[in-house]
Amino acid sequence: MNKHGGYFGDSEKKIIDFSVNINPLGVPDTLKEKLKKSIDNLESYPEIDGISAKNTLSKKLNVDREDIILGNGATELIYLFAKTFKPKRVLIVEPTFTEYERAFYLNESEVYHFKCNENDEFKINIELLLKDIDEIRPETVVICNPNNPTGIFTEWESMKFVLDKLKTMSGSLFIDESFIDFTEKHSYIAMIEDYPIFILRSMTKIYAIPGLRLGYGLANKTIIEKLNKYKEPWTINSLALDSVEVLIDDNRYIEETKKWYTSEKKYLKENLKQIKSLTVYESEGNFFLCKLKKSNSIELRDYLLKLGIYIRTCEDFYGLDDRFIRIAVRSREENIVLIEKLNSYFTI
Amino acid sequence: MNKHGGYFGDSEKKIIDFSVNINPLGVPDTLKEKLKKSIDNLESYPEIDGISAKNTLSKKLNVDREDIILGNGATELIYLFAKTFKPKRVLIVEPTFTEYERAFYLNESEVYHFKCNENDEFKINIELLLKDIDEIRPETVVICNPNNPTGIFTEWESMKFVLDKLKTMSGSLFIDESFIDFTEKHSYIAMIEDYPIFILRSMTKIYAIPGLRLGYGLANKTIIEKLNKYKEPWTINSLALDSVEVLIDDNRYIEETKKWYTSEKKYLKENLKQIKSLTVYESEGNFFLCKLKKSNSIELRDYLLKLGIYIRTCEDFYGLDDRFIRIAVRSREENIVLIEKLNSYFTI
Repeated sequence: MNKHGGYFGDSEKKIIDFSVNINPLGVPDTLKEKLKKSIDNLESYPEIDGISAKNTLSKKLNVDREDIILGNGATELIYLFAKTFKPKRVLIVEPTFTEYERAFYLNESEVYHFKCNENDEFKINIELLLKDIDEIRPETVVICNPNNPTGIFTEWESMKFVLDKLKTMSGSLFIDESFIDFTEKHSYIAMIEDYPIFILRSMTKIYAIPGLRLGYGLANKTIIEKLNKYKEPWTINSLALDSVEVLIDDNRYIEETKKWYTSEKKYLKENLKQIKSLTVYESEGNFFLCKLKKSNSIELRDYLLKLGIYIRTCEDFYGLDDRFIRIAVRSREENIVLIEKLNSYFTI
Repeated sequence: MNKHGGYFGDSEKKIIDFSVNINPLGVPDTLKEKLKKSIDNLESYPEIDGISAKNTLSKKLNVDREDIILGNGATELIYLFAKTFKPKRVLIVEPTFTEYERAFYLNESEVYHFKCNENDEFKINIELLLKDIDEIRPETVVICNPNNPTGIFTEWESMKFVLDKLKTMSGSLFIDESFIDFTEKHSYIAMIEDYPIFILRSMTKIYAIPGLRLGYGLANKTIIEKLNKYKEPWTINSLALDSVEVLIDDNRYIEETKKWYTSEKKYLKENLKQIKSLTVYESEGNFFLCKLKKSNSIELRDYLLKLGIYIRTCEDFYGLDDRFIRIAVRSREENIVLIEKLNSYFTI
């Protein structure tokens, strides 16, 4: 079982949690109002195919309803993809979210790793990736875009070469866009009709509702139909289903989020970069991967935890080790506290 | 995909839904109050192993915490059991809930059916079942107790023979007790340490919260550990996890439910039995299986739907056909309307 998903130590203690990549603006007020009313609807089973929610997404994203599948969080869809297609060989672009590997592994796929290098600042070297695909001949390539934990975004212009190759091999690309709403980058949505792509989306992070469990996937009808054949019924609770319309319509929340992130991310990055004992990588996500030049991440985590701050150490990510940490962007006040405590640690 | 889970036609139309086996007393008030407060907690990921909820259940049911697994509704655990153990041969006691067959089928088990007969009023003939087990040598036997849709409860004294046999064959019994809270019958919980049993429980039905998705399983530690190896993370939303303690403590709701059911079930049964065109089977569930002596269930369903009533036709249950319907116990007022309309149909 994944041991992450935020701080779960002593619940009495107030901890500033920099380990979760969740919008710190919190649950939108529009949603809170809606959910209070929805509590009465718990007496009905959730709409089994979530048609109302799919209709809302279809209109907003400008894709057919039949190109959408809903998930109990994005996680359900990672496992559903793995068990539906059971690819013999999977190539995962690393370092990345560890659940992809577990999902394919449990479904008896041979899992290969394509490692992005520190020297390339963790950008994907497309030429090397194409070479690996030629050698391994994976049925599925997995990429998270922007990537967790590196924050790297790979543009369509580069990825197109990968997809052209996969197309000739009847392979597919599983692309996790769970963090795309935090960027100004372009999704690959427009490509789902022409390429064998499955796009994974999470509503958890941008709307600060990881407790509610809500995600969706986008692909051409053939892929979605196959997934539906293996989908378990009633996986998405009715409060999550009821939320879709309210969230999608709440443009003000997204605007506020983006405005806020632009300034706050800049502030955090600039201040992290001033800490000489850290290397801070460029990130399109709402978090920064950092490398400790001389110290150990576990030691730093434990030091900060005593001061009421929790960070994500990265030793469990393929290709990273105990020199790496991931820090989410939080409120100005909280970011100031973090920077202070980091400085105090490194000057001891 | 399962097409059931209640009426999902025109949502503008007020339909009395006799097709869902949900407590008509509705969502407990104690839970509504709790959930209104819990909405603020959606900003955190659900507790990944649900320890707090497991502790509550452990105390209430008097089993070790390590003997409990939580599910996103009972459904997740049906599929989890099937994919964890991938039994070569499964024997399902029929007619019963159709998701067992689908779950094992998707995991490439050979599925066999043991059919309970109309002539035995759908009671399990244990002698014949033992004979089938000897012949088929299934790794898992599946039974729903009380059974959906027949309402039959099989006492431990009979089932013990099945378990003694399964034990010698290293087989296991998957027993779905989702409806046991509606009866005064004894659960098989006390047997989990001595026998290879997995007990499935739903909180959906008795607490009228199918929209929230909450179930759990009970078995010895060896079985639970294996299941945890395959369990997906964060499947249970935090509102569902938050509910466990409130629900388990709400003794008044359960008392009211039982008191109410005793009288209302009696009323409905007596009145259904007076309809000469129906055979009504004895039931330990909160529903009745009925057989139409001369007419077709689909025709009856469509007739009633025009009058604002929805019933469950049973043609998709193994061993039943379009002469069978299932009717849930609802409020006195609603039951009166149903009886009236049934009478009007049969006297046309």
